[in-house]
Amino acid sequence: MDPWVWAYEGFDPENEGLREALCTLGNGYMATRGAAAESSADDVHYPGTYPAGVYNRLDTDIAGQTITNESIVNIPNWLVLRFAIDGGEWIDLREVELLGYRQELDLRSGVLTRDVRFRDAEARTTRAVERRLVHMGLPHLTALQTTVTAEDWSGSLRVRAGIDASVTNWGVPRYRKLSSRHLEVLGLEEADAETLVARVETVRSHVRVAEAARTRVFVGAGDDAAVSAGAADVAAGAAAGEGRAPEARAADAAAGRAAPERRLSRDEGVIAHELEVALAQGQAATVEKVVAVFTSRDDGIFEPGHDALLALERAGDFSALLNGHETAWSHLWARSSLELPENDDVLQIARLHLFHLLQTASPNTLDMDVSLGPRGLHGEAYRGLAMWDDLYVFPVLDLRLPEVTRDLLKYRYRRLPEARRMARRDGLRGAMFPWQCGSNGEEMAQKIHLNPQSGRWIPDVTNLQRHVGLAIARNVSRYHDTTGDDEFMEDYGAELLFEIARFFGSLASYDGARGRYEIRGVLGPDEFHTAYPGVDTPGLNNNAYTNVMAAWLFGEAARLPARLSERRAAELTDTLGIDDDELGRWEELSRRLVVPFHADGVISQFEGYEQLEELDWEGYRAKYGDIHRLDRILEAENDSPNRYKLSKQADAVMLFYVFGREELQAILGRLGYELRPEQITATIDYYLERTSHGSTLSDAVFAWALAREGRESAYPRFMKTLRSDVDDIQGGTTPEGIHLGAMTAGVDLLQRCFTGLEHRDGVLSVDPRPPAELGPIDVDFAYRGHPLRLELARGRARLSSRSDSAAPVRVRRGAELVELAAGGAVDFD
Amino acid sequence: MDPWVWAYEGFDPENEGLREALCTLGNGYMATRGAAAESSADDVHYPGTYPAGVYNRLDTDIAGQTITNESIVNIPNWLVLRFAIDGGEWIDLREVELLGYRQELDLRSGVLTRDVRFRDAEARTTRAVERRLVHMGLPHLTALQTTVTAEDWSGSLRVRAGIDASVTNWGVPRYRKLSSRHLEVLGLEEADAETLVARVETVRSHVRVAEAARTRVFVGAGDDAAVSAGAADVAAGAAAGEGRAPEARAADAAAGRAAPERRLSRDEGVIAHELEVALAQGQAATVEKVVAVFTSRDDGIFEPGHDALLALERAGDFSALLNGHETAWSHLWARSSLELPENDDVLQIARLHLFHLLQTASPNTLDMDVSLGPRGLHGEAYRGLAMWDDLYVFPVLDLRLPEVTRDLLKYRYRRLPEARRMARRDGLRGAMFPWQCGSNGEEMAQKIHLNPQSGRWIPDVTNLQRHVGLAIARNVSRYHDTTGDDEFMEDYGAELLFEIARFFGSLASYDGARGRYEIRGVLGPDEFHTAYPGVDTPGLNNNAYTNVMAAWLFGEAARLPARLSERRAAELTDTLGIDDDELGRWEELSRRLVVPFHADGVISQFEGYEQLEELDWEGYRAKYGDIHRLDRILEAENDSPNRYKLSKQADAVMLFYVFGREELQAILGRLGYELRPEQITATIDYYLERTSHGSTLSDAVFAWALAREGRESAYPRFMKTLRSDVDDIQGGTTPEGIHLGAMTAGVDLLQRCFTGLEHRDGVLSVDPRPPAELGPIDVDFAYRGHPLRLELARGRARLSSRSDSAAPVRVRRGAELVELAAGGAVDFD
Repeated sequence: MDPWVWAYEGFDPENEGLREALCTLGNGYMATRGAAAESSADDVHYPGTYPAGVYNRLDTDIAGQTITNESIVNIPNWLVLRFAIDGGEWIDLREVELLGYRQELDLRSGVLTRDVRFRDAEARTTRAVERRLVHMGLPHLTALQTTVTAEDWSGSLRVRAGIDASVTNWGVPRYRKLSSRHLEVLGLEEADAETLVARVETVRSHVRVAEAARTRVFVGAGDDAAVSAGAADVAAGAAAGEGRAPEARAADAAAGRAAPERRLSRDEGVIAHELEVALAQGQAATVEKVVAVFTSRDDGIFEPGHDALLALERAGDFSALLNGHETAWSHLWARSSLELPENDDVLQIARLHLFHLLQTASPNTLDMDVSLGPRGLHGEAYRGLAMWDDLYVFPVLDLRLPEVTRDLLKYRYRRLPEARRMARRDGLRGAMFPWQCGSNGEEMAQKIHLNPQSGRWIPDVTNLQRHVGLAIARNVSRYHDTTGDDEFMEDYGAELLFEIARFFGSLASYDGARGRYEIRGVLGPDEFHTAYPGVDTPGLNNNAYTNVMAAWLFGEAARLPARLSERRAAELTDTLGIDDDELGRWEELSRRLVVPFHADGVISQFEGYEQLEELDWEGYRAKYGDIHRLDRILEAENDSPNRYKLSKQADAVMLFYVFGREELQAILGRLGYELRPEQITATIDYYLERTSHGSTLSDAVFAWALAREGRESAYPRFMKTLRSDVDDIQGGTTPEGIHLGAMTAGVDLLQRCFTGLEHRDGVLSVDPRPPAELGPIDVDFAYRGHPLRLELARGRARLSSRSDSAAPVRVRRGAELVELAAGGAVDFD
Repeated sequence: MDPWVWAYEGFDPENEGLREALCTLGNGYMATRGAAAESSADDVHYPGTYPAGVYNRLDTDIAGQTITNESIVNIPNWLVLRFAIDGGEWIDLREVELLGYRQELDLRSGVLTRDVRFRDAEARTTRAVERRLVHMGLPHLTALQTTVTAEDWSGSLRVRAGIDASVTNWGVPRYRKLSSRHLEVLGLEEADAETLVARVETVRSHVRVAEAARTRVFVGAGDDAAVSAGAADVAAGAAAGEGRAPEARAADAAAGRAAPERRLSRDEGVIAHELEVALAQGQAATVEKVVAVFTSRDDGIFEPGHDALLALERAGDFSALLNGHETAWSHLWARSSLELPENDDVLQIARLHLFHLLQTASPNTLDMDVSLGPRGLHGEAYRGLAMWDDLYVFPVLDLRLPEVTRDLLKYRYRRLPEARRMARRDGLRGAMFPWQCGSNGEEMAQKIHLNPQSGRWIPDVTNLQRHVGLAIARNVSRYHDTTGDDEFMEDYGAELLFEIARFFGSLASYDGARGRYEIRGVLGPDEFHTAYPGVDTPGLNNNAYTNVMAAWLFGEAARLPARLSERRAAELTDTLGIDDDELGRWEELSRRLVVPFHADGVISQFEGYEQLEELDWEGYRAKYGDIHRLDRILEAENDSPNRYKLSKQADAVMLFYVFGREELQAILGRLGYELRPEQITATIDYYLERTSHGSTLSDAVFAWALAREGRESAYPRFMKTLRSDVDDIQGGTTPEGIHLGAMTAGVDLLQRCFTGLEHRDGVLSVDPRPPAELGPIDVDFAYRGHPLRLELARGRARLSSRSDSAAPVRVRRGAELVELAAGGAVDFD
């Protein structure tokens, strides 16, 4: 098994959705859904391609209410490429005899290949090899190359290559009750004999999208057609695949570039070229389709259609593009190296996850004002809205591509004005970030949602999860410590920290009776609990996760002015009106916020949790089997999860993931609470017994907490996390799009949790707790601009510098503080 | 005279265009043309507002050719605000008896005030005071406040406030032969009783622009109306002017908020509210109009109209907005401080120039993908296209707001793909940046232009000015040395330097006869020379300015890989295909490029210049008076400037401005040329006698060169530079928009030239040559993040730290290298 390859043998229409999701290609700017090759299978079922940042809102009338949903928009499908033989029907894999089928995603080079051999009804044997890429170096470009070999026949090959602009958002079954037609077709034109261009516009947000597609055909002897066509480009030395010197074009003829008959075909919303070439027995035709995509949100353009055509003018042919694409991927992998020398099974999945992360967020997303949706850029589920998944994704990015984190944090910064308006609307101060952040920062959380179990539309109050702002603050702080990027902190980060602290400061109230501050009426990450039993008003008091995060932030914000430059501290406190009173209040809040504990020292999820009823877990498991979504089950029974000691996902246990034991003890200590090791163990065990894991992230958090305790149950839970998308453990949610947070959490368990790699206040530390099953771990990362490698093997750890010139970093080894200079190494036992 | 105020007394319709240009308000995101207050004068003549980055292209048929021009677009005029008394006509200042008129631009706070008292035909005396701001802290917002006092009458005041979307580009008379209607009106709607919204779209680039305008009226006793209305906001403590707590709104009533009769009025392309309020004698009505502007190119929005209305929901009233606006300006001025304790005349103009710079480029332009046009964002001339003016502007920005320079350099970086295509189109390699850069990086230089003198359309080959790419490279390098921002160099700057070096490397050819490399067939900054006399093919050989700049760049590029981190050097050389051969070639070119000299050691503008004929300067001056544009004069005479020893502007002399003597001697020395002090003097004098100063930048460059020689003729030339817009020395070009390069060059003469403030390779140096007329100079700036002050007075100079914590900087004092630590100072004699 090659841990660089993710492959499937055999055609499996039943599991196409899952394969498609896992093999989706993207480059940050765009994604294209990958498993189904339209040359031979259904091209309607997988319409979607998602250029980052194209959103639209549609209204739907449900139960007398107008529901407005914002979604990331499926834009026109450029994958339309089908073929037929000798005037027959378009080939459909489900109607031919398959002699061979292999689908292979090369993770190293980002190329998806499908190799198909089949015999048709006329007993002709044909082989079709498709290679596909979404260019990692030239983010507006994608390319398909299909080579069709007439193994035992001669005749004409007819190819249809076009753009389908009649797409809708149709990928998530439960959303199909909602309006789904986001695009108006503005124009479908033939730009020249080999080029088509489609222009569309979203119907409410009025974002324009243009796609230009160029199709060329090469005919040669057997499978060489593609290779020789490519050779011309490589010989011309086309740097990065962008364009070729004029003399290279003359080489096309030598490589067998054909000038087939072309016919323009139009259908409703679809434009295509139909080409026909004659093949002798044993000959092959290679069809190359290169597509450029631009939207009106892009920088550096005049008009999307104009610039899409210009980009095609600059673009070389497939092999030149492939060349540049592979170079770009090789650089990304060099910065994202992770090795498990003795565990290919885990490594292959971890690389698949890194691959999806790098396809979603990369240097290509810089300056694009995009966020990370829970499903990356891949699927329609959650509609591409930004939630709190960053908290799980950024730790992996911070250590590899911190400039990408920086840019994604600016997405939040730009939406401060709307977060301020939301706080003021509720009579509060500072910035209240939305739970489901829309394109312009407005709260897009559903107000009602469908329980498929009961068929009822029920009120959705999950937007009371104020903790999303705290996750943003933590992300700012972690980015800053990883990079030492003071400029970011001064220009963007500090304002976010101040305004989020100010919001929680205005939310906190003083309870004279116990002499502490409280945060009332919010929800924690556990969405099963939305109110106290029998109480109509939603919201809970003193959610432990929220309060500890807030206490941490108050401490940071109070100290922040002294850590900024004099000029910037003055500017910010002046602009925002922060005075010593407010700083003093934050300081006090960092010491006197309440954190609830059970009588036995277990951290209470929220105040009053201990008084709830125990659920009959065995009974529900016996009755329903899958009880991930106990909320839906209980609602359908006219009961409510609010009554019970249960959780959708880790809530209080999140604290161990976010802070680690030492920092958590420090925060609680400052608040006047003790956290003994046995309390941690007890807290983990207590919630483990009462969690349904209705989120893919829940297992990851428990695995983390268990692993840091050195407990054996960590490994199976890690494997469950790691395989959650690969096995589609939530029974059908993966085909709606991969779960980016769970994917990266799996990687993060490898790189930070099992290694105990931590950094705080400019000091790195390593405290390994590797599961025996895993074998050695090598992780490459950068800390404060210094490229480092951490190697873990057989009870030893070594941290070594991978630079000859970078500034030294400080490392804690036990009680000792050592300096790791360029070229040096530190060993740990 | 207050050097913080730019004021005019008396109404002067003749000079309105000039006043308007100098008083234009902007904030980087948008500019609004300022001098004419539409409440009382013509509101058709000044349509323009330019939110950064909105361009369109229009075709015009001229002389059988289709000319395509790209222009920055005048968007709908939101300044429409007029008033009438007792059912009379709209007041027009030209038709009433003016009792007083004062127009005042407060440079410190960015507020334009016009105070008018007049007696109308019915002998009623009225005072109208308008204050206007374009918000520096909230760049989408602008606000007008007009207080009308019925001094000796009672009656009704009728106000018309609206948006005029029927605008065209009409500000440059000679462009009026070109098509000028850039906008299609999509919708003009009343959003609510006090709010209007206009949506338009550019006709070819399809950029959407939306404006929402909210009008409120307050009635009070006399001029207090405005003040008391404002007090409510201030009391509510509206931070940054963005929004107010709900309780503040109740205060409106107390402040006299009126609920006037409103009538919606529509005209072609215009929507307005007409309001009527009753005034008793001595009473005043204050009309506040707050406007939000959004375009489809903005980040963080859903749809421009939707977000414009949302922004108005967040916006406080005038005084709250003013409050935040003043705070933002105070921070900008703190970072841009320049003092001339004994010269208010010069200081006032220098501040006006800094004011225009800060209005054009500021933190508000970050992430907007905009460039600096020759006229900033203010005027239609040059159509907002980016040329090489950055070279004059960035030195001022680098020392104050380097993050703004950084972002403007990224504008160039994003246009590398098109610059590469242009090079390849010409059979060359690397990146060939366009002379007049369009929105998407395409060359937008005119192919023919009108000579108003002859009435002929003549071919325009000025786009052969390849030196624009060298200016970009120099800007990258200077920014990097000013800030020490290695991350920028690694991520963006290095690729620019490599690709520009590669372009010039492919342009250079070897002349075996003289054993040197040449650059043939280009133009220098002097656009009067486009070809050798009698030769049809345009282009000149070995332009000294171009070749010396190129030699400098080759040296930088050859050393660059060793200066980058290992990882990034490997990535870049790999992606771009740079090998040791190419680095070696650059190294060789840095030593063996030819630079032409006259027989007497004067630097030749280009090869062959010495053989041209002398022009009869006295004869032409006598015949034509103004001979700035000798090109037009000679063409009209069927002659050509190509025949003569003349220049439009400093060309070879630019070298002294760009490099300074020491660096220039080093570059030439490396090339094997000597540059003795007397050659510098001779070169300056030689060209001074042969330059028509057809560009405002020419005087600045000569002033620089003369001042560094300590010559007395520098000061009058500095004053001419400084006053060039204030006096409109080119006879009518300033009303078309201020000249940003000349404005900043005037400031730069004060801060860098007279002080001799230089930095190179991480070392600051000071070598003052102040003109006696100027008096002491104090300049605040930042070098490598360290805020510093340079004070020059009475033959002494002191450089002092303005920080308690910044990292030390290295300073050269004579032969000695000293360290200036936080809180310290270095004295120079």
